[in-house]
Amino acid sequence: MTTGVRRRMGVEERRQQLIGVALDLFSHRSPDDVSIDEIAAAAGISRPLVYHYFPGKLSLYEAALRRAAEDLAGRFEEPREGPLGERLLRVMGRFLSFVDEHGPGFSALMRGGPAVSAGGPCARETVSTTTALIDSVRQAAYDQILAHLGVTEPPARLELVVRSWISLAESTALLWLDGRRIPRAELERQLVHDFAALTAVSAAYDEEMAELLRAVLAQEPADGPFAELITRLAALAP
Amino acid sequence: MTTGVRRRMGVEERRQQLIGVALDLFSHRSPDDVSIDEIAAAAGISRPLVYHYFPGKLSLYEAALRRAAEDLAGRFEEPREGPLGERLLRVMGRFLSFVDEHGPGFSALMRGGPAVSAGGPCARETVSTTTALIDSVRQAAYDQILAHLGVTEPPARLELVVRSWISLAESTALLWLDGRRIPRAELERQLVHDFAALTAVSAAYDEEMAELLRAVLAQEPADGPFAELITRLAALAP
Repeated sequence: MTTGVRRRMGVEERRQQLIGVALDLFSHRSPDDVSIDEIAAAAGISRPLVYHYFPGKLSLYEAALRRAAEDLAGRFEEPREGPLGERLLRVMGRFLSFVDEHGPGFSALMRGGPAVSAGGPCARETVSTTTALIDSVRQAAYDQILAHLGVTEPPARLELVVRSWISLAESTALLWLDGRRIPRAELERQLVHDFAALTAVSAAYDEEMAELLRAVLAQEPADGPFAELITRLAALAP
Repeated sequence: MTTGVRRRMGVEERRQQLIGVALDLFSHRSPDDVSIDEIAAAAGISRPLVYHYFPGKLSLYEAALRRAAEDLAGRFEEPREGPLGERLLRVMGRFLSFVDEHGPGFSALMRGGPAVSAGGPCARETVSTTTALIDSVRQAAYDQILAHLGVTEPPARLELVVRSWISLAESTALLWLDGRRIPRAELERQLVHDFAALTAVSAAYDEEMAELLRAVLAQEPADGPFAELITRLAALAP
């Protein structure tokens, strides 16, 4: 209940508010272009008060990044029900929605991390912090996909396909952000199809992968994204 | 002709020798673990003499990286003769051979660049130098592929497929380096097949891409890598 009186925020509440404000700013412009003054203004507090909660832009950036990483990792979670193609399609929808929301910040981060170091410490520690966060999200995505495939001890070829597809999804999203020249919905479907295609390439030469692919396809409905792809690909064959 | 007398090297010759020695060391261990003392010892000169040619490890690292980037970009060059599948297979062979030769250095570089900054300047400039070099190699690969496809003004979907495949090749190589659990020759073929598969996925929903794919496939021989893939994929279909 609000009393109309502006109440003082607690320390943790204020920190969380600042992280939210910073994440919003870091998402819409390159983090290098966002100043502490702007963050203070957007949060409605003074510059020294920002420094009271965060020693510098770097620590605020890392906190914002941590929140974004948790958000993104959460988007890979999907109930293990129904056909795999539909599940992946929903996950890709949430992934590209995240990329859309955090465009410039996502680009800056994935292109070697931001150089948020003006006047601050060397970027070395930031690079390892951001790399660790990015890796944690990749690992969460990888674990999710394996769980959906029902595999606990992935053979080397499966690990390669899943991890390289995750990397393909990242780079596809990054390339798409540069101009957004392809409808997002098309990209979501394409990434799901890419997963099927990369798996099929591996399965074409390896019986273990072929068995896995057959098990997945056997559960796909005739009107699902995988079945549609196979029909369309067959029409392309010479 | 050698006279048996150890002659003094010229400035440029000595610089090139140091770059070669450094590249060799930076390739086989993480660049952070290579000291100027080691480089001096491997080159058979004193530590102060190394500093006479390069102000520090950072500049020597960048020079080594520049040479490696030129080497790698050169490996994408391939005569525009014969079927595309065979050409791509030769290029992938040279690419993975490069990755094999420069393993730890390649990994360190692609995982956010090395933090070669101990006692030196902040990593900020290094990050932008390494990013620019990596981008120049990616662009060289992209230009080569487009030239082989005979395309001068690529539609957005083709650009996305080619660039995202280049990124897939990078990540596949990086993942492979971690344990080398799959034979290299298999990986070379798989990357060529991945290119065909990603193109086919895009072509399944876009007539312009479908035309391009048909034009490529029409020139493929019955015993080429693309034809073999299609046969094997057809055998997988439910």
